[in-house]
Amino acid sequence: MSVLYVAPGACSLAAHSLVHELQLPIQVEVVALRTPDSPIHRINPLGRVPALSLDDGTLITENSAILPYLADLNPEAGLFAPAGSAERGQIQSWIGYLTSEVHVGGFRPLNRPERYSADVAAHPGIRAQAAEQLHQALAHIDRHLEGRPWLVGERYSIADAYLGVFAGWLPRLGERFTDLHNLARAREAFQSRAATQRALAAEALR
Amino acid sequence: MSVLYVAPGACSLAAHSLVHELQLPIQVEVVALRTPDSPIHRINPLGRVPALSLDDGTLITENSAILPYLADLNPEAGLFAPAGSAERGQIQSWIGYLTSEVHVGGFRPLNRPERYSADVAAHPGIRAQAAEQLHQALAHIDRHLEGRPWLVGERYSIADAYLGVFAGWLPRLGERFTDLHNLARAREAFQSRAATQRALAAEALR
Repeated sequence: MSVLYVAPGACSLAAHSLVHELQLPIQVEVVALRTPDSPIHRINPLGRVPALSLDDGTLITENSAILPYLADLNPEAGLFAPAGSAERGQIQSWIGYLTSEVHVGGFRPLNRPERYSADVAAHPGIRAQAAEQLHQALAHIDRHLEGRPWLVGERYSIADAYLGVFAGWLPRLGERFTDLHNLARAREAFQSRAATQRALAAEALR
Repeated sequence: MSVLYVAPGACSLAAHSLVHELQLPIQVEVVALRTPDSPIHRINPLGRVPALSLDDGTLITENSAILPYLADLNPEAGLFAPAGSAERGQIQSWIGYLTSEVHVGGFRPLNRPERYSADVAAHPGIRAQAAEQLHQALAHIDRHLEGRPWLVGERYSIADAYLGVFAGWLPRLGERFTDLHNLARAREAFQSRAATQRALAAEALR
């Protein structure tokens, strides 16, 4: 059986929720991150989640690969779109934007300034600039969602699940991000789904 | 007719080369970046390339979306893999890794430290750390390529085209990156392809 490795509070929550949304026969393993004895190191040499280990030992990493892979296992669920369609291209565009501009471009320097400078004195400036970049990147999404129910078309897609995770990280960032009303709506929509609640409950147990 | 917007020397070279590899009826428009009057601002509000404008006005952005979209227009060319296959998942994993760890995680702070701190005095430290992170990210790929002809399986894929672009940026970074012999091989393989040479020639004209 394929196994999806996730960590509590991490961006792997999107893939975790999709296992339930899509009713896939995939085992979910909740692991610790950044502890040397975590089983994740045996699975993924980079020590990161999400990581999807297939029956045959193939490892699939990166949300931009795992979310589409999972959706393609159950296309009837309608969370993605057929290969070659413009809609699929748009959903994958938003996933790419969330990875590059929101997660790696924004949250990473905000949460882990030590990855951006060995000089501790530089960290407050890096975090301040990261908050700025993150807000800009999120405001672009917030504007796109104005008057639209979902990121692409008239239905919930894997891009909305991924957005829901990052939108869920905003309340802990304080006042600065409370103007993004459409992202608050996206967070509510994601967190109220039965599949998401099931994933959150499993991650909370650990 | 769909139009692909690219800029000379940018990461859009991968998509540009694929238009020729896949013999697609897509017009390629070479534009300037970071000039206020560039036509890219009318097409993509973020002012970035690659950007693919479809017949019907749909805009597709992000390499992780554009490269798969182009490949799916001509699956017989064998540069990608069928939806739902493990091979497709692996190819998309490498594309995701290149975007997040190599481009946004490595090259961006190296080339644009001003995006990571408003304090100019912090920039040398940010660039030094970025070179470290970039080398680590690339060394992971270099080890994977040891004894392998391509990133996934026995044939050139859209992930190798994308890798070829970043491998092509390494010589200008000097000595620090010359130990990555398999990336030098990937660069040669990419740059010697007829489709890549045609794309490079078109970008050089501008």
